[in-house]
Amino acid sequence: MAKELTSRSESYSQWYNDLVIKADLAEYSAVRGCMVIKPYGYSIWEKMQRALDDMFKETGHTNAYFPLFIPKSFFSKEANHVEGFAKECAVVTHYRLKNDPDGKGVIVDPEAKLEEELIVRPTSETIIWNTYRNWIQSYRDLPIKLNQWANVVRWEMRTRLFLRTAEFLWQEGHTAHATKEEAIEETETMLNVYARFAEEWMAMPVVKGYKTANERFAGALETMTMEALMQDGKALQSGTSHFLGQNFAKAFDVQFTNKEGKLDYVWATSWGVSTRLMGALIMSHSDDHGLVLPPKLAPVQVAIVPIYKNDEQLAQINEVAAKICAELKALGISYKYDNDDTKKPGWKFAEYELKGVPVRLAIGPRDIENQTLEMARRDTLTKEVVPMAGIADQVKVLLNDIQSNIFRKAYAYREANTTVVDDYEEFKRLLDEKGGFFLCHWDGTSETEELIKNETKATIRCIPLEGPVEPGKCMVTGKPSARRVLFARAY
Amino acid sequence: MAKELTSRSESYSQWYNDLVIKADLAEYSAVRGCMVIKPYGYSIWEKMQRALDDMFKETGHTNAYFPLFIPKSFFSKEANHVEGFAKECAVVTHYRLKNDPDGKGVIVDPEAKLEEELIVRPTSETIIWNTYRNWIQSYRDLPIKLNQWANVVRWEMRTRLFLRTAEFLWQEGHTAHATKEEAIEETETMLNVYARFAEEWMAMPVVKGYKTANERFAGALETMTMEALMQDGKALQSGTSHFLGQNFAKAFDVQFTNKEGKLDYVWATSWGVSTRLMGALIMSHSDDHGLVLPPKLAPVQVAIVPIYKNDEQLAQINEVAAKICAELKALGISYKYDNDDTKKPGWKFAEYELKGVPVRLAIGPRDIENQTLEMARRDTLTKEVVPMAGIADQVKVLLNDIQSNIFRKAYAYREANTTVVDDYEEFKRLLDEKGGFFLCHWDGTSETEELIKNETKATIRCIPLEGPVEPGKCMVTGKPSARRVLFARAY
Repeated sequence: MAKELTSRSESYSQWYNDLVIKADLAEYSAVRGCMVIKPYGYSIWEKMQRALDDMFKETGHTNAYFPLFIPKSFFSKEANHVEGFAKECAVVTHYRLKNDPDGKGVIVDPEAKLEEELIVRPTSETIIWNTYRNWIQSYRDLPIKLNQWANVVRWEMRTRLFLRTAEFLWQEGHTAHATKEEAIEETETMLNVYARFAEEWMAMPVVKGYKTANERFAGALETMTMEALMQDGKALQSGTSHFLGQNFAKAFDVQFTNKEGKLDYVWATSWGVSTRLMGALIMSHSDDHGLVLPPKLAPVQVAIVPIYKNDEQLAQINEVAAKICAELKALGISYKYDNDDTKKPGWKFAEYELKGVPVRLAIGPRDIENQTLEMARRDTLTKEVVPMAGIADQVKVLLNDIQSNIFRKAYAYREANTTVVDDYEEFKRLLDEKGGFFLCHWDGTSETEELIKNETKATIRCIPLEGPVEPGKCMVTGKPSARRVLFARAY
Repeated sequence: MAKELTSRSESYSQWYNDLVIKADLAEYSAVRGCMVIKPYGYSIWEKMQRALDDMFKETGHTNAYFPLFIPKSFFSKEANHVEGFAKECAVVTHYRLKNDPDGKGVIVDPEAKLEEELIVRPTSETIIWNTYRNWIQSYRDLPIKLNQWANVVRWEMRTRLFLRTAEFLWQEGHTAHATKEEAIEETETMLNVYARFAEEWMAMPVVKGYKTANERFAGALETMTMEALMQDGKALQSGTSHFLGQNFAKAFDVQFTNKEGKLDYVWATSWGVSTRLMGALIMSHSDDHGLVLPPKLAPVQVAIVPIYKNDEQLAQINEVAAKICAELKALGISYKYDNDDTKKPGWKFAEYELKGVPVRLAIGPRDIENQTLEMARRDTLTKEVVPMAGIADQVKVLLNDIQSNIFRKAYAYREANTTVVDDYEEFKRLLDEKGGFFLCHWDGTSETEELIKNETKATIRCIPLEGPVEPGKCMVTGKPSARRVLFARAY
């Protein structure tokens, strides 16, 4: 099966599509732009959810649930928000179907028209802040730190599985604070949570920073982002955290009595990551043989394949495998012992490579004799014969090593593909030649940003939080620049 | 706060609404019939989800995700299904808004009309079976045993928080099998999973059985149900499992090659429970003081309240409490130590009663002296002074006891309110006088069932799976009946 994947060098885009389909992660549905997340893909998403949810709870957040539908008028209340979100969206206008008098089908009942249309949420700031108005009277009611796991819909014209779909799954945090400082701190805390998740769980290095005004969330005063570099040299925005100021509180009239007894508007943040992270995960590590999954997010961490010629051999291997499985289980390692007789070992090897299972153990008759087995790692595609004794501990060490190794590899790739450039012509040339991240000086104006975008399709991914701050001159206009910013073409 | 609840005897319905609101479980939103599930309510739902999800996985199911939207035409494909589900639903007709040329708001862009309207899923059989067509060719592709956690929308005219809302959260299992027998076994297995969850986690006894033809799921050959008795003598359908036969496979042309090499249609089941279970939980155990939660589903199992007159006393209690918290944590018991200085102990006691926290510990200066504390249980509203030594173990025993006790109490209530009646006039009288479950003979016809429903508002909740099978005569027509069936008025 692995052979059927288009190679990355041939077409990265086709390789991605092939891999998502062939590794059983997701597929398009009968509804334009909407995907079916298949069980294997969903089990990775579940692991992401669990890890993130634990981190949200550790940082003092609780989950809640707000309605799928938002009255149309809510979108008009925050001037910037409406421009950004109320445009391409699914609009519910009716609430009933009836039998078609002329045929066997059903038609929309024209008498069941809603007084006010409902929008399927593209994001929930408006309905949540409309709700918070009734929850917040005093500083004693603050902070409110909520998160919801939900589906949202944005009517995208061009869609790609996981990366851009009309419906997607995400979490959206919405917090309310008594002070500006506290809201800014929350915005930063959550970006750091995301970055920690990206690096420690997904093994995906990220650059943290601020979005420019042009690239901010509609309604935010500041948008913080984490940007990851994919193997084709394009950036992928992987999570954002927004400092919303008092914009939504003003739009929905959410005031509170502060400690000094005065009325003030509440300060807000929102932050989210989505099933887009699945795309980021796939494009960070995988190769022409298939998925490469970080052990911490792999639904199956170890596949065990028996190699045998007759039932007697299989019986012996089954017995040994049962012991190994028990040992793995005791260490909390997830495994699959695959003694399906209808498939050949070679087929299984290719299948587990395609699915990104981090470690594969193979046990044959000679292994039984020698008390050994073959241990293969997915990330490097190397294997070795190891003693059977203490195999679970060896696997545990190997899983940790794979987790670190794929992070290091992705980090090294990013370092090798981050270029410091001062000349605009060189920037354009290198962007076409090799892509990647570019650290360049920029004069801070939207005009220059737009010009670069129009001429090169590269955008400012962020103004990085970390790294040296050295002043210089804008590569386009020569005007002063306080520090280099991160440019790239992006998904 | 507890005093503000309407008493159950005054108005059960108002008591329920008061409790849902005042215990911070849920509230209505700005969107008609849609609710906001508040953090406390959602944390109970999360515990339900986790327990159910574990049980689904133990029985060989995996999660996946299918689109929110279903093309309108899909509903016309299964004749019974369309009658049951395609009527009161949210219909998406457009995919864009635009600025209102006459004002500041937004209007639906008439040029962005969908070619085919999309229905917000009321249930997902149609889109899932349309997908299964591409997944299933051979018996080797079977069984498929998937579940999804999702939101669904049914445009209900009369709504009640948790019990009947336009949007609700649920899980829906959808399985595909090679044989009729296997599908029937799956239908039964999942009803048993639900019943085990209801009894072991929710402490809510249920009667398992088959629905009559009238009450079946639209498109099912058999619907199995579990029915619980609420404190006001009304039944609540708490979970259903459907044997769908080959209806959806035929409607969506899902055929497979069986072991004999012949083409056949695939056999199907579906099963679901929803946030309605929250309503069932509330109405099974709670009292005029507030919620009573089974310890297994309580977000906080133990509340610890310090009682003190000065900072010195508080410091001593804090120290002792820290040790107790550490002990509770070690036993996996969730707790909250509430030393909020702005609230009085009496307020806290009432608050934790209202929220249904199973165990409350109070520690005062005398307790520090005597090495004791006060341990109160929510279910019986009794308390005792107990030694501080080994308190965590005592709490653990008490939590188990509360879990059993509220089940026994609910079970005893149901037994006391299940009446065997042979006379139709007596049935009508007792139904009005005391309500509850009634075991009666019925002639098996839809006509008689309808007549009883029209005259009494009671319906056949199920044909029970368990209990004695004794033949008799229909209480209305006098015609032969093979066994008694369960009647009740229902939510």
